[in-house]
Amino acid sequence: MMYRWVVENQIGKKDLLIDKCDSKQTVYVFGCKDLVLQIKGKVNNITVDKCTKMGVVFTDVVAACEIVNCNSVEVQCQGTAPTISVDNSAGCQLYLSKGSLDASITTAKSSEINVLVPAAGPDNDLVEHALPQQYIHTYKNGQFVTTPVSHSGG
Amino acid sequence: MMYRWVVENQIGKKDLLIDKCDSKQTVYVFGCKDLVLQIKGKVNNITVDKCTKMGVVFTDVVAACEIVNCNSVEVQCQGTAPTISVDNSAGCQLYLSKGSLDASITTAKSSEINVLVPAAGPDNDLVEHALPQQYIHTYKNGQFVTTPVSHSGG
Repeated sequence: MMYRWVVENQIGKKDLLIDKCDSKQTVYVFGCKDLVLQIKGKVNNITVDKCTKMGVVFTDVVAACEIVNCNSVEVQCQGTAPTISVDNSAGCQLYLSKGSLDASITTAKSSEINVLVPAAGPDNDLVEHALPQQYIHTYKNGQFVTTPVSHSGG
Repeated sequence: MMYRWVVENQIGKKDLLIDKCDSKQTVYVFGCKDLVLQIKGKVNNITVDKCTKMGVVFTDVVAACEIVNCNSVEVQCQGTAPTISVDNSAGCQLYLSKGSLDASITTAKSSEINVLVPAAGPDNDLVEHALPQQYIHTYKNGQFVTTPVSHSGG
């Protein structure tokens, strides 16, 4: 039995908190704007759908954190997440913790996705990586071979 | 000096023809629906922008054929094209000729892109290849490594 937190059509609230979560709970955020939502504890799944200028801070997810149909979203994982997926979204900052560096980040139909990872040194610096958003497909030996176009920088 | 053919806001015409083109001409198609446009000769560039259910058949392009902001577009290259780019579009069938098999196909923010290439045999069969639309990014040795998700089939 799964329990579902739903946050819908909220605007301008910067201190929303879902507390004491457990892994039988999922969080669904829809149609929000100018929001900061903090999710404490380990939830099964987080879905952020059709949100703009949205910040999500969470501890752990068991399955995935999904960003769909969003614009200008910041997502911070403080613990672990096996999968973070970004679909049909533009402008997304993903902050990974040391525990979530091995997350699979999946993108589709998205642009301007940056991932910030902790630097190797002792201080809490972050290093920003832009994920490719353009791909070149060339036909070789009867198959298409896909290469990401990486823009150098930062 | 470049000359530009503009086809704008046309609906339901299946026999449009731009004839006797040369490489100082470009073609710009915008806001069309249920259209079939044939371009004969070698043009510098073709851009198809914000079109739905559109067919474009062309002989050669010198620079690129660009599909932007489209839905359900079919593009057939009968000669050569160094680059075919698809940006922010869904549902695109690209028909390549034997002369355009070495085209670079560039995609960004797009889904359901299929490329049909001539089969190896003597008859005129086509083989369909679906381009990847989802990508997995994993962090390895301080860098993100991107892998296309390919769905088997056809």
